[in-house]
Amino acid sequence: MVTLSNRCTRSLNLRHPIVSAPMAFAGGGALAAAVSRAGGLGLIGGGYGDPAWIEEQFAAAGNARIGIGFITWSLRKSPSLLADALKHRPAAVMLSFGDPRPFAGEIRSAGAKLICQCQNMEHVEDALDVEADVVIAQGAEAGGHGALRGTLSFVPEAANFLARHAPDTLLLAAGGIADGRGLAAALMLGADGVLVGTRLWAAQEALVKERHHQAIVETNGDGTLRTRVADIARQIPWPRGFTARIRRNAFTDRWHGREEQLEQNLAVEGPRYRQAFAEGDPDNTGVWFGEAAGLIEAIEPAALIVERMAAEAAQQLARHGGAALA
Amino acid sequence: MVTLSNRCTRSLNLRHPIVSAPMAFAGGGALAAAVSRAGGLGLIGGGYGDPAWIEEQFAAAGNARIGIGFITWSLRKSPSLLADALKHRPAAVMLSFGDPRPFAGEIRSAGAKLICQCQNMEHVEDALDVEADVVIAQGAEAGGHGALRGTLSFVPEAANFLARHAPDTLLLAAGGIADGRGLAAALMLGADGVLVGTRLWAAQEALVKERHHQAIVETNGDGTLRTRVADIARQIPWPRGFTARIRRNAFTDRWHGREEQLEQNLAVEGPRYRQAFAEGDPDNTGVWFGEAAGLIEAIEPAALIVERMAAEAAQQLARHGGAALA
Repeated sequence: MVTLSNRCTRSLNLRHPIVSAPMAFAGGGALAAAVSRAGGLGLIGGGYGDPAWIEEQFAAAGNARIGIGFITWSLRKSPSLLADALKHRPAAVMLSFGDPRPFAGEIRSAGAKLICQCQNMEHVEDALDVEADVVIAQGAEAGGHGALRGTLSFVPEAANFLARHAPDTLLLAAGGIADGRGLAAALMLGADGVLVGTRLWAAQEALVKERHHQAIVETNGDGTLRTRVADIARQIPWPRGFTARIRRNAFTDRWHGREEQLEQNLAVEGPRYRQAFAEGDPDNTGVWFGEAAGLIEAIEPAALIVERMAAEAAQQLARHGGAALA
Repeated sequence: MVTLSNRCTRSLNLRHPIVSAPMAFAGGGALAAAVSRAGGLGLIGGGYGDPAWIEEQFAAAGNARIGIGFITWSLRKSPSLLADALKHRPAAVMLSFGDPRPFAGEIRSAGAKLICQCQNMEHVEDALDVEADVVIAQGAEAGGHGALRGTLSFVPEAANFLARHAPDTLLLAAGGIADGRGLAAALMLGADGVLVGTRLWAAQEALVKERHHQAIVETNGDGTLRTRVADIARQIPWPRGFTARIRRNAFTDRWHGREEQLEQNLAVEGPRYRQAFAEGDPDNTGVWFGEAAGLIEAIEPAALIVERMAAEAAQQLARHGGAALA
């Protein structure tokens, strides 16, 4: 039998070394629960601080063993969200995009695994400072927020750093991973597992409008870009250095490279963006997926996605490993 | 015995599925010959059209079985370079950054393998139109010129496309690959082999000044950026859409984001750039390497780099393949 059992599955008590990205708005309790029940670890997307929404998502997850992820700079504005989430006894809490120091102790004290997502080597050092249980090296291919390192070179560099300074810390790869080939590649690069966003955004359980789901099926991997325009239109004050990868569409064609003009037109463009998003318009708002769009041909149940990814990765490893031994 | 023998090594008559990037200025005949003699395929960097330099590099390669690569849009300005190169009976000719159609027939008629490097899916379609023998999917991690797709998602998407439309065409991965882990990952993603630039730029045989070599050893993978400023300073008219990944240094800190001002100061800044480059100054000129810098700790002979990469990849595949089969 092919299997991907490793120190990641043992430490996090999983069948597959696959964690779902805590995608704001899209990553609700149903998706997290489906990923966990399929043998991965599902994370609710803590988003920008709506406590009622988070409670609903924990309820939607039922008794599944899940975790939650927060946008660290945003959590600093509403730190009570963390205490509220910890009451649900999440298996893990992920912090990304900001200094993890203010929250690490509270997470650890609650008995949750501390996962720190990193976009560059400086972030990896921050994660080791707070003794993260899991470090994620997220490459620029990823959908939604991220930065500029590419997954393929960032992961082995992070692996080298962990091997020297914190050999017991787990490493996950994120950014561009949508199938068993990506998972197998991540393991080759020195990761212990993967964080999957875009491929699970395209799961039936994701909280994504139907026309946005249709758009990812129709878009190839060239059809996204990293930009600030969605955050400007939404008036969400992301720190410089982070951009969002979204679908290239009429909205981005109009405003990317014209950020100052967009700022000047927010009275009109802000409501227009939000209305188009609420309506599931794929052309006039941010459509939040990454380069892995080119590997996605159908909207499928999360369990199928997770189980196929693990099985394909194990087969790919066994086939090539066998050939290398021949 | 572990081995990476596959259809790439058989088709190109190699021991290892490793091709050296034809790096302008840095990739001369000595480097190409060393890579080929170690079992890979070395490519001279055809650069921007200096016929005497190219002749010198073919001479420096001696009787090694090598190839050459051209910057396609630049070759259109000096098409006789191709005929001159083909007189040396190169094993392969690589075209990158432009329409391959004007040159494909001449290359094939000369009996050389046609390699087309691609930066997005549209380029892959162009490569199949000219029936390329080898397609390279180059990700944004790469040093020097490239575009925006990340290697990790671009390679499997290109592999899917080739499987459907040209299953006999070989696929190489490029961008961020500097060791056996990267090679093993590329094979997992569906590539038949890899193109290696930055790691071989840091080879003893590369035509690189000592202080530039020292800079790559000291720089981690966060220390590069994609920018137009080197091409502006050198007054080389690269088509829009392509940028160069170079070391982040005083030169890029000063001008990146201030491209118009640099254009206005070319009378001073152009000669300053070129003089600093000629002197091997690591701070005031373009220093041409990619994100794989974070994986490079020493300047070593090319043969050692190629042989270690192949051996490590085979070991990595065998170990993980064996674990998956356990």
